[in-house]
Amino acid sequence: MSTALLKTARNSAPDPLVVAAELARRLAATANERDQAGGHAAREREWIRESGLLALSIPEEFGGQGADWPTVYQVIRTLARADSALAHVFGFHHLQLAGIQLYGSPQQQRRFLTQTVEQNLFWGNALNPLDKRTTATDADDGFQLDGVKSFSSGSVGSDWLTISAWHAETQSALIGVLPTRQHGVTVQADWDAFGQRQTDSGNVHFDQVALPSTQVLQAPGHTPTAQATLRSQVAQLIMANLYLGIGEGAFEAARDYIANEARPWFASGVASAGADPLVQHRFGKLWLKLRPAVVLADHAAQQLERLFRLGADVSARQRGELAVAVAEAKVLAHTAGVDISNEMFELTGARSTSAKFGYDRFWRNVRVHTLHDPVDYKIRDLGRYALDGALPEPTAYS
Amino acid sequence: MSTALLKTARNSAPDPLVVAAELARRLAATANERDQAGGHAAREREWIRESGLLALSIPEEFGGQGADWPTVYQVIRTLARADSALAHVFGFHHLQLAGIQLYGSPQQQRRFLTQTVEQNLFWGNALNPLDKRTTATDADDGFQLDGVKSFSSGSVGSDWLTISAWHAETQSALIGVLPTRQHGVTVQADWDAFGQRQTDSGNVHFDQVALPSTQVLQAPGHTPTAQATLRSQVAQLIMANLYLGIGEGAFEAARDYIANEARPWFASGVASAGADPLVQHRFGKLWLKLRPAVVLADHAAQQLERLFRLGADVSARQRGELAVAVAEAKVLAHTAGVDISNEMFELTGARSTSAKFGYDRFWRNVRVHTLHDPVDYKIRDLGRYALDGALPEPTAYS
Amino acid sequence: MSTALLKTARNSAPDPLVVAAELARRLAATANERDQAGGHAAREREWIRESGLLALSIPEEFGGQGADWPTVYQVIRTLARADSALAHVFGFHHLQLAGIQLYGSPQQQRRFLTQTVEQNLFWGNALNPLDKRTTATDADDGFQLDGVKSFSSGSVGSDWLTISAWHAETQSALIGVLPTRQHGVTVQADWDAFGQRQTDSGNVHFDQVALPSTQVLQAPGHTPTAQATLRSQVAQLIMANLYLGIGEGAFEAARDYIANEARPWFASGVASAGADPLVQHRFGKLWLKLRPAVVLADHAAQQLERLFRLGADVSARQRGELAVAVAEAKVLAHTAGVDISNEMFELTGARSTSAKFGYDRFWRNVRVHTLHDPVDYKIRDLGRYALDGALPEPTAYS
Amino acid sequence: MSTALLKTARNSAPDPLVVAAELARRLAATANERDQAGGHAAREREWIRESGLLALSIPEEFGGQGADWPTVYQVIRTLARADSALAHVFGFHHLQLAGIQLYGSPQQQRRFLTQTVEQNLFWGNALNPLDKRTTATDADDGFQLDGVKSFSSGSVGSDWLTISAWHAETQSALIGVLPTRQHGVTVQADWDAFGQRQTDSGNVHFDQVALPSTQVLQAPGHTPTAQATLRSQVAQLIMANLYLGIGEGAFEAARDYIANEARPWFASGVASAGADPLVQHRFGKLWLKLRPAVVLADHAAQQLERLFRLGADVSARQRGELAVAVAEAKVLAHTAGVDISNEMFELTGARSTSAKFGYDRFWRNVRVHTLHDPVDYKIRDLGRYALDGALPEPTAYS
Repeated sequence: MSTALLKTARNSAPDPLVVAAELARRLAATANERDQAGGHAAREREWIRESGLLALSIPEEFGGQGADWPTVYQVIRTLARADSALAHVFGFHHLQLAGIQLYGSPQQQRRFLTQTVEQNLFWGNALNPLDKRTTATDADDGFQLDGVKSFSSGSVGSDWLTISAWHAETQSALIGVLPTRQHGVTVQADWDAFGQRQTDSGNVHFDQVALPSTQVLQAPGHTPTAQATLRSQVAQLIMANLYLGIGEGAFEAARDYIANEARPWFASGVASAGADPLVQHRFGKLWLKLRPAVVLADHAAQQLERLFRLGADVSARQRGELAVAVAEAKVLAHTAGVDISNEMFELTGARSTSAKFGYDRFWRNVRVHTLHDPVDYKIRDLGRYALDGALPEPTAYS
Repeated sequence: MSTALLKTARNSAPDPLVVAAELARRLAATANERDQAGGHAAREREWIRESGLLALSIPEEFGGQGADWPTVYQVIRTLARADSALAHVFGFHHLQLAGIQLYGSPQQQRRFLTQTVEQNLFWGNALNPLDKRTTATDADDGFQLDGVKSFSSGSVGSDWLTISAWHAETQSALIGVLPTRQHGVTVQADWDAFGQRQTDSGNVHFDQVALPSTQVLQAPGHTPTAQATLRSQVAQLIMANLYLGIGEGAFEAARDYIANEARPWFASGVASAGADPLVQHRFGKLWLKLRPAVVLADHAAQQLERLFRLGADVSARQRGELAVAVAEAKVLAHTAGVDISNEMFELTGARSTSAKFGYDRFWRNVRVHTLHDPVDYKIRDLGRYALDGALPEPTAYS
Repeated sequence: MSTALLKTARNSAPDPLVVAAELARRLAATANERDQAGGHAAREREWIRESGLLALSIPEEFGGQGADWPTVYQVIRTLARADSALAHVFGFHHLQLAGIQLYGSPQQQRRFLTQTVEQNLFWGNALNPLDKRTTATDADDGFQLDGVKSFSSGSVGSDWLTISAWHAETQSALIGVLPTRQHGVTVQADWDAFGQRQTDSGNVHFDQVALPSTQVLQAPGHTPTAQATLRSQVAQLIMANLYLGIGEGAFEAARDYIANEARPWFASGVASAGADPLVQHRFGKLWLKLRPAVVLADHAAQQLERLFRLGADVSARQRGELAVAVAEAKVLAHTAGVDISNEMFELTGARSTSAKFGYDRFWRNVRVHTLHDPVDYKIRDLGRYALDGALPEPTAYS
Repeated sequence: MSTALLKTARNSAPDPLVVAAELARRLAATANERDQAGGHAAREREWIRESGLLALSIPEEFGGQGADWPTVYQVIRTLARADSALAHVFGFHHLQLAGIQLYGSPQQQRRFLTQTVEQNLFWGNALNPLDKRTTATDADDGFQLDGVKSFSSGSVGSDWLTISAWHAETQSALIGVLPTRQHGVTVQADWDAFGQRQTDSGNVHFDQVALPSTQVLQAPGHTPTAQATLRSQVAQLIMANLYLGIGEGAFEAARDYIANEARPWFASGVASAGADPLVQHRFGKLWLKLRPAVVLADHAAQQLERLFRLGADVSARQRGELAVAVAEAKVLAHTAGVDISNEMFELTGARSTSAKFGYDRFWRNVRVHTLHDPVDYKIRDLGRYALDGALPEPTAYS
């Protein structure tokens, strides 16, 4: 698809799922080799930019496509089937836009979202709240930022960043936005995990960086509103859909390999691998991990959409019930992704481990990404809820 | 609730879920002791009759409540939480009514459904297709039935029965209906399984029983239509909802016991059993078995409802896709029911095994009922579908 | 086998495993019906007494058979395959004898063990340390006992009891022995759990019962020696072997049913249930639960035997390593027993749930007995050991 | 350890486990970087050669160390903890030596084993029996070999090879040995799987290669004896021990990481990751996968040792029972290896995925190697045995 065509398409509001499918097809062609090479996928990030999908979640009033969250998540999942690293970068871009809508003033929303559409900006994340090494100190008309922030997904190659910084005076964190190429900001392309290798999740360093108050979304010392705390639910559901996309990709790879490459085991007495009852049974069990996870993720997306549209009217109880639904979906997606990418090999066999297929990337990608926050604490949160109705405490992870 | 009140309620179309909840409450009070005693629950079956819910699934044009399938299944599940044996009898009553709608001529539907409403009839099942010991031989104006039929749920105490019989000439089965108290029909109350003890699932004997052709729903030698084969999906989804009801009942029993009876383990260092991280985590895992099963059962019920309303227009492909959805729900419900009723004791502990609680009945009931047809063949069917899109073969079990 | 013959046999030291097999055969004949009836198995307990096996673990110097622990556990497991309730009573008899050897003075050992052989005494347990309702107060030449003790396995019909009682002054428990028919002792046959129904595990009441100091095995205020704390390991390994016996019994029942009763599923395309690949595969998985549990239980028995023979020389480290081995065996046995007795039905199917087989008793028995202490804390103990070598804290359960 | 020292050590018969531990220590230092690089580990294979351990399994009468199989397997496992690819090469060297002992005439044994000791030869495998593309045609004094053989572990850099070739005339395979550097033999270093990357498991090409009859271990057209079929059990148990070594390596890595690197989750309320009950519990569950697998592998090794020493006297029944024991150990080791290397990350968390640790190699290695033959058919074989005592059919895989 040429850039011109895409631009036209954007104006006439093409179906984003069709655009996503085409983009996924292009990414898939080189996903295996880029996974092996790691590093920054500059060209492919441009494809994403050209697709128009950076404006997908932006309300129409700011010039965006105004897609609802179920659609955004479908797009993320579609991309993740082909290339979960770039799907991550894409998903986290929309997480930053969600943050602006949830935390930002009307002026901030108009300014940053309009600008994103007009300049086709790519947003990155530097908000890891468990890493408190970046500090904010009071300065004229705002704050000064110093320190470093790890796990900054999508930071390399981004135009703008959402950041958090620890404000010692109030013993709380502020949240703000700033241009990546601002003086004093250095993005280090030093992400070296064994999976999600092209997520550009390096360290971002801040050296006497000025953050004017107009760019502060959440001032220090404020307890976030229920609306603001929806951000972690947007993020958690991005992850769930990334895991699902990887799981689906692995599942499809196994299915195609069984159909086209696998040989029946000599002791099976059947004519094709797919006719083996033990293969059918095990594949059925994997299907039963995938399907419920997909259905519950879609449910949670609809629930999120409703609350997101409530804006400031969302209640703590509604937010908590959403967090339960998202936690359910995330644990199921976690399990489905890890189990399918691990177990698929029992069905595809020894020859499927050749580097030419690159099937290990499903496991490596989902294994790395599912460690964002510990699944056992999600399960514990669900247990608490089931025991006595206790809603998950609103944190950056729940 | 008095009979008078209920009759009034029926006329003014009360919410069947409210009626079911009240009925469940009454059944729950004696469910444990009746489970211990086994046998026929004559009084409780009268309560069901008086509730008006026997007409629940009958279209309004025949005087029934015209509830959709999602509602019928909700009612079954509600009853099963309290008393899965009577919920089974209740569910199978509606299965027979579904069979009349799916197989019967317009005249037959009018006759049998109207009569059911007017006389508040209770239907039983004598259709076990794997048991071919009941034969149909051609007779004047119909057939003569001889032989025996096992696993006839709800037959004891029923007014009418759906039966199947093997017709040697055409090497096929016919399906018909007849009054339970007809000459030559003997219902044996000999069900002795260790669970679902009050399901009245005995043997029915036929000795020179006349079946007039007006009571034949499916003549021998006919390949059933796609519509007719929906019957097994109605049945399978009844089972799924029974398993879920049992699972929910067990889950609630465990939750209440943990809240009110259980003591923290001396080595846990916490003040209450429910505050133990290991209890919370395990309970969360059980929740993650229950929730997806419930959601997928509800999905499948909506899908069934759509196809049921299509009538003769339902296609083989639609029917097959429904069968996939139902199989997914049934396997998940099977697993949830068995696992929760088995594992709940790891959380409730030794003192919860006292007969006064009767908590073993959840496992006994779900363990017996989940053996209706082998779960491994459901999983295999799903595996085949996932491998190459093959739809489950329409049988009495899939 | 007549009593005379058995007496002869005892003198000429017959193989206890042969005697146990014969005893198991006799118990098996009525195990199902006695399980249904519950209550006290007076006649069958006499058979155990007549078998001579009450002296099995008593050293030869006191007139016993001097069997090593691996043999004692084999006998327990053999009996449990047939009748896990009586195997429990039998195992706990030997637990009391072990207690005398581990806690008692040489005089006490000689007195109680010799007397046990000479009078063919049956011992019961009233030592549940978590139940502190029985108190010991200082009295002339000993203590006075008052209160109640729950979960007293084998107490009904016993000749002597081991008891524990809480001594407020020292804030510790004493352990002693006394005749069951002593004045002030009342054994209540009120055990009403849904499994292990004939274990005679009722409440024992003490009303101003005199416990002379010659019958105190462990005086209050004393920290037990490493040797003394072997008792809980003897007990835990009795449980593991009971669970294994039940698991083996269930496994054999399933195997025999598949061979002789089960029909192949109509969609399987095979001629017998045992030829079905899905049946073979699932049965193989159950085997893989049973076998390792058996091997590790046997290992732990040998390890216990070595330490038991060390007497007072056993070190805390040796005791701790034994506790690890026993915990491993117990968790595996727990899982094997519960899983096999639960899953066997997926293989044997609906008709196997008839009361005439009584196959639910395996699950009911193992389900009740495995709740003695929470498996999750055993797993936690093993995790702690694996993490940093921490040995399980010596308690009545670890 | 210097070569001189090792040579001395070999003469004075040092403990091979000590030698192996030292060798493992050396391999461990670069295992991660060599895993990343892949290719042939020429230098490290020389270390193995210099260690003297190539003569480990060779009987003393031929100048070898005469170690029993339990020791050989311990050494394999020790090496695999550090470097499973080189442990594989090492294990398969001994598999070839076992083949010579099991198939070869006394003359062949003397010739090849003595020569192996004297020249410190390294053997490779080219025997993959499922790949029938290498043919043997009758020739003067022996056979001519043509074709290709895949999955030839250890072939690159080997001195001698065991080969199998398909003999069309008798429709059977012959087994022989030949020098790797013989005319017409080409070893292709084209192994490109995502794990076990340094196993040198490439394709071997044969172009008019002469195989004199003195080098034929098993002539075509002969049914192998029970003794000969022990070879596949030696091989299967090598695999089990490799999987266990990888599992142990992963387990130790997780343990050390938790102790030294991991941080407690912010919501855990504990001071260190290792103090978290959920971490302890999950770690305990992993331990319960590892321990039984180790114990059963050791049992099987002892059983193999007994049968190996029986020589031609081994019966088909003994061989079959060994195959059951080995299958049990292999499935448990498979499961332990895969599960631990996969699940360890739930405990170690996001930061442990950095390439500097290289922890993904455990999963990649065990995932690739466990696909040697399908685990589901091992489980099926065990199910068949458990159902009716059927012994596994002697094949190259069972």
